[in-house]
Amino acid sequence: MRFFTAGESHGPMLTAILEGMPAGLPFDMEDIDRDLSRRQQGYGSGGRMQIEKDKVRVTGGVMNGMTTGSPISLIVENRDFKNWRERDITPITTPRPGHADLTGAIKYGYRELRLSLERASARETTMRVAVGAICKRFLAEFGIEIVGYVSQLGDVVAQLPSDPDYRALYEAAETNDVRCPDPEAAEAMHAAIRQVKIDKDTLGGIFEVVALNVPPGLGSHVQFDRKLDAKLVAAMVSIQAMKGAEIGHAFKQAGLPGSQVHDEIDVDEKGAIHRRTNRAGGLEGGITTGDPIVVRVAMKPISTMLRGADSVNLATGEADRTAYERSDFCALPRAVPIGESMMAIVLADALLEKLGGDSIEEMKPRFDALRGNRLAD
Amino acid sequence: MRFFTAGESHGPMLTAILEGMPAGLPFDMEDIDRDLSRRQQGYGSGGRMQIEKDKVRVTGGVMNGMTTGSPISLIVENRDFKNWRERDITPITTPRPGHADLTGAIKYGYRELRLSLERASARETTMRVAVGAICKRFLAEFGIEIVGYVSQLGDVVAQLPSDPDYRALYEAAETNDVRCPDPEAAEAMHAAIRQVKIDKDTLGGIFEVVALNVPPGLGSHVQFDRKLDAKLVAAMVSIQAMKGAEIGHAFKQAGLPGSQVHDEIDVDEKGAIHRRTNRAGGLEGGITTGDPIVVRVAMKPISTMLRGADSVNLATGEADRTAYERSDFCALPRAVPIGESMMAIVLADALLEKLGGDSIEEMKPRFDALRGNRLAD
Amino acid sequence: MRFFTAGESHGPMLTAILEGMPAGLPFDMEDIDRDLSRRQQGYGSGGRMQIEKDKVRVTGGVMNGMTTGSPISLIVENRDFKNWRERDITPITTPRPGHADLTGAIKYGYRELRLSLERASARETTMRVAVGAICKRFLAEFGIEIVGYVSQLGDVVAQLPSDPDYRALYEAAETNDVRCPDPEAAEAMHAAIRQVKIDKDTLGGIFEVVALNVPPGLGSHVQFDRKLDAKLVAAMVSIQAMKGAEIGHAFKQAGLPGSQVHDEIDVDEKGAIHRRTNRAGGLEGGITTGDPIVVRVAMKPISTMLRGADSVNLATGEADRTAYERSDFCALPRAVPIGESMMAIVLADALLEKLGGDSIEEMKPRFDALRGNRLAD
Amino acid sequence: MRFFTAGESHGPMLTAILEGMPAGLPFDMEDIDRDLSRRQQGYGSGGRMQIEKDKVRVTGGVMNGMTTGSPISLIVENRDFKNWRERDITPITTPRPGHADLTGAIKYGYRELRLSLERASARETTMRVAVGAICKRFLAEFGIEIVGYVSQLGDVVAQLPSDPDYRALYEAAETNDVRCPDPEAAEAMHAAIRQVKIDKDTLGGIFEVVALNVPPGLGSHVQFDRKLDAKLVAAMVSIQAMKGAEIGHAFKQAGLPGSQVHDEIDVDEKGAIHRRTNRAGGLEGGITTGDPIVVRVAMKPISTMLRGADSVNLATGEADRTAYERSDFCALPRAVPIGESMMAIVLADALLEKLGGDSIEEMKPRFDALRGNRLAD
Repeated sequence: MRFFTAGESHGPMLTAILEGMPAGLPFDMEDIDRDLSRRQQGYGSGGRMQIEKDKVRVTGGVMNGMTTGSPISLIVENRDFKNWRERDITPITTPRPGHADLTGAIKYGYRELRLSLERASARETTMRVAVGAICKRFLAEFGIEIVGYVSQLGDVVAQLPSDPDYRALYEAAETNDVRCPDPEAAEAMHAAIRQVKIDKDTLGGIFEVVALNVPPGLGSHVQFDRKLDAKLVAAMVSIQAMKGAEIGHAFKQAGLPGSQVHDEIDVDEKGAIHRRTNRAGGLEGGITTGDPIVVRVAMKPISTMLRGADSVNLATGEADRTAYERSDFCALPRAVPIGESMMAIVLADALLEKLGGDSIEEMKPRFDALRGNRLAD
Repeated sequence: MRFFTAGESHGPMLTAILEGMPAGLPFDMEDIDRDLSRRQQGYGSGGRMQIEKDKVRVTGGVMNGMTTGSPISLIVENRDFKNWRERDITPITTPRPGHADLTGAIKYGYRELRLSLERASARETTMRVAVGAICKRFLAEFGIEIVGYVSQLGDVVAQLPSDPDYRALYEAAETNDVRCPDPEAAEAMHAAIRQVKIDKDTLGGIFEVVALNVPPGLGSHVQFDRKLDAKLVAAMVSIQAMKGAEIGHAFKQAGLPGSQVHDEIDVDEKGAIHRRTNRAGGLEGGITTGDPIVVRVAMKPISTMLRGADSVNLATGEADRTAYERSDFCALPRAVPIGESMMAIVLADALLEKLGGDSIEEMKPRFDALRGNRLAD
Repeated sequence: MRFFTAGESHGPMLTAILEGMPAGLPFDMEDIDRDLSRRQQGYGSGGRMQIEKDKVRVTGGVMNGMTTGSPISLIVENRDFKNWRERDITPITTPRPGHADLTGAIKYGYRELRLSLERASARETTMRVAVGAICKRFLAEFGIEIVGYVSQLGDVVAQLPSDPDYRALYEAAETNDVRCPDPEAAEAMHAAIRQVKIDKDTLGGIFEVVALNVPPGLGSHVQFDRKLDAKLVAAMVSIQAMKGAEIGHAFKQAGLPGSQVHDEIDVDEKGAIHRRTNRAGGLEGGITTGDPIVVRVAMKPISTMLRGADSVNLATGEADRTAYERSDFCALPRAVPIGESMMAIVLADALLEKLGGDSIEEMKPRFDALRGNRLAD
Repeated sequence: MRFFTAGESHGPMLTAILEGMPAGLPFDMEDIDRDLSRRQQGYGSGGRMQIEKDKVRVTGGVMNGMTTGSPISLIVENRDFKNWRERDITPITTPRPGHADLTGAIKYGYRELRLSLERASARETTMRVAVGAICKRFLAEFGIEIVGYVSQLGDVVAQLPSDPDYRALYEAAETNDVRCPDPEAAEAMHAAIRQVKIDKDTLGGIFEVVALNVPPGLGSHVQFDRKLDAKLVAAMVSIQAMKGAEIGHAFKQAGLPGSQVHDEIDVDEKGAIHRRTNRAGGLEGGITTGDPIVVRVAMKPISTMLRGADSVNLATGEADRTAYERSDFCALPRAVPIGESMMAIVLADALLEKLGGDSIEEMKPRFDALRGNRLAD
């Protein structure tokens, strides 16, 4: 499975092509639009989210409500485009620290920094969410579900159980506009965002995405580029503003002895094998264990700050202060569905590799015959 | 640039093929052997390191002491092989928690867990270090250097300056057998490993790898799979026992406001642009800034514990205790050169993409003409 | 450089994303539309070409008339779509021999053969031509030009000089509607198509595509998948209805002794090295020689024949005769620009690999410094 | 499935790594050595074939006579190496027309042409044959067989039936040293090679490789780079000295009307669908039909001619005559197993994609459940 996205933040439309999805997957535009809508909602977001109400249009790869196996092409129009086309846009020449303004300009030889930011903007993630929603639908055919929520926003840390019911966490998180399952922390996060607006500053944090009911045996240890944990952290850090990722609580567990980290193994009288804990976060040797896959992702605060930052005007060569471009104060709640999407994409690809085949009909019996965590297998 | 490794922990030899290295790179076997030797040394390692003294043999792609542009093939013989061939090896049927024993067996249908562990073992990293040493040599042609050191071992955290001289840290780290630049912490780490041996337990920790003198403009923001930060964390987590990675102090910075995270930009009277700090860890928008690239990696404690762990014997179906297979108590110091190697591989690939061409001679003037952090460019 | 196409023959639109084109390439929509128009014209084509007048729309990757280095997204609307949406379309259940009707149905589990043909149709090549036109524009920056013409149509073989001026051949070919540079043969080809219409049959033939002014040193012999000749024949045979391809007159030369096949080498007083002939078709060892690259491609006759063919109705299980779907009698003249496009894509990719870099500005001096067929180099 | 080869013609050894072969494939070294031996035998070969008796050594990925799913590493020692190491080797500076001597030197900046030819030499194909033999063994698990034979040598064309029993052709071909199934033609081919030795010239020709019992539905029409016919011709032309390839008799059929080219479809009383002919060569729309896959490959005469050729001495800048390096007069019979190997590699990869999974045990029931050319499916 392969995909590309294309399109600029203020261009006419965003585009994606998803190649390798099997035939016979029921295709529901509302699946996609629901996640697109989740991506647009969250406390701390800027004005644009009021302008855009993203709706996806499928332009290839789907007939009679089912995928055909052909590449799926998707577009989302930028409703803002018309306004922009008519405006006289001043060139940006003072790079914002933390954004791709300066690095992109040096790489591509731009004289105008808007050429960097138009593509570097997180607007691009719209299409990742659209592609991810299709992958979620594919995984759902096999009972696999992906959920996500915020666990830390700024310095406010949610209190979460050590062996949680992830579905319940997700449902709790979806009830508030910071996507945090701990109501008290949610309250405090809300307050933190209010304060940061007053401070004209920005906030990041940590979110977690979790895959449930994944069969054991996806990914592989045999070659460096086939390890599923490596693919998952790459998928997360490939998202705009994400700077780190860990499987389970890897950084905390790095400080503990092995006897407190590894998950001891049990067998019940029916021959079912299970681990007593899931500190491994669902992956051993780069292969799924069958337990929930838990990935934690560190997001930096948004680079565009209303208070500005010291920089240099590349056109004049003088020290300058960055200008404010409409932006979020905290985009963390909105990052959750993006993280879910990237996880869905990685897992759909891994499942396709395990099952092979070209149609859902062909894959279903193969899935049912997979070896599991059972002595009999 | 592409590469594969092959070979088992107790097979006759390990092999690697590195495809895409340009012609005309001076090739010194000692470069490789020095890093192979670093990989074999560190306090806390088990008995095997006394058995193996790895020496690489180059069997293709090098003539008259220079690379030719043809694929480079490398082998390292397993000196232990002869002993193993003659022994009567009892099958392993009780999986060790944390290792690929069980997940590999379910994936590939093994009845004998040795088939998992023979390839999942970190013995494989020998060839990554060999390939990485060639990439380091390539980067050195352009003045780029890669260093690494331990910053936390178990719960012992080194005190490191916030804006360090990374070369000095590296040199300090190389003077002790836990590879830690802070001498007091090194002492305490040493003690922690002594204790864990008594406890028959294991320890992990955190190491940092840093690339110096990397030009700005490597990597790209334009497509999800071209972001250099994503490639770097994937490279790290693809190493056996690594479960998380971050660019700079991403998880800590996730708790701070943007004004304390982003690196403000200065220009000096000569028109040189620089950032006042390097909290970004050398990457903005998935593109290098020209500042040191800093990646921090979380290693879990080794899975094989002398004290054993509860598990199940897959052959009998009974609960069982894992057996001890000769192993390290703490492999963190030895992980440092492996991390350096993976970073070298990722950066060599990114530099090759930027420079193009087929020989060092062809690349040198291109490198010298690269746009940099200068107003004039 | 990577690209995908998407979209169905009678869907709302066709889409392509081209990833990896450098920044700073002047982008002219008319370049693309001219080749799209060439793809739609040729004697022997069916009714659809009168319906569609393809116009490309660029929806990403281009700002102010220049590429930005971001992925380029392109769409071409199917004007026919509206008509189709309103019609009541009878399912096709009798596969046409030679088309992907039956093989696609078996692969993807289709019950309705339209799902195969909608994507298998050569309508898809519209987007290859659009992508190819951008690649031609890129190559033109470096003086490289790609031309094509028909050399055999049905059993009518054009008389072409053994060491031709390919640009002149191309210009002559563009003056007639069978794209053949030999006017007498063009006449006979025209007659052959007239006859085949009367016979309710179809015709194929052979076309040649040629790249001029390509520098030596593109492609490589060092690994099987880097040979440029292999990439070129694959690109050609990947086009709908193409079943074979050769570099130069490979099949004829297979019958001659080496002394009549290999191109002897001369040097002139200025130290310029050249081959006396170009029987190698511009490639030795999978690497360009600097001489014109000549690829000859065998196209089978169109599968959809007005006379029908014996087949089986998969719905009833009875023997049946294929129905006629509007189609061409001979699509060979229209295949020429498609072949040119695939060649442009392969060569643009090879040149990007040789030059590296991210903008035309960065590539130009690198191109000028390339080693050539000169003693001094 | 991925693989690389490495090693030089006169280096210490040749190496290959094959990544992605499933676990549980019985592994017989003799399978490989038999094909290696076939690659070394054929009338018209030079002296080296008497020196080398290639034996493969497996150094990874196989335990207890079965593949493990880990990468398979293979080496073949160059027995000639010792002799070469001790000799004083004069540099080659006069490029042979037709070889990669000059193109490789320009590409990589070589001053000594031996650096080109050491890797460009067909000695490299040893490892393709080794890898191909494993793929043949894999395909054989599913009843798929690959055969090959010479159909034209120089201007001597074998008379072959239009709808042959390919297995019988293969067996007939293996009885003589030009690998031609037509005994009279074989005689004439033998004579042609004798003559070319007297003429100090070289000969090429055409060989055919055929895959039997391939299930329908491998490959795909949905994206340009997934067409199996394109992959097959690329695989063939990637072999040293191959300049063209066609599916079936593509170039001949390009001259015929559609009614004489397309394979009409029948159904028998049991509901089995079959084509009356196999002019399509086993592929429609880039997807297998279930009929024999027939690929015809044009090989140019060997470049190294005992009579020499006009060239230029790059060191002196003077016109010169090429020197003779020990070589074959006609390598066509020996090319047949190489072509078979490349076909086996392409088809093993396509079958792995269709079946998915990680072990032969997992794949077998999936294969048995594949949809076939039956009405019931």
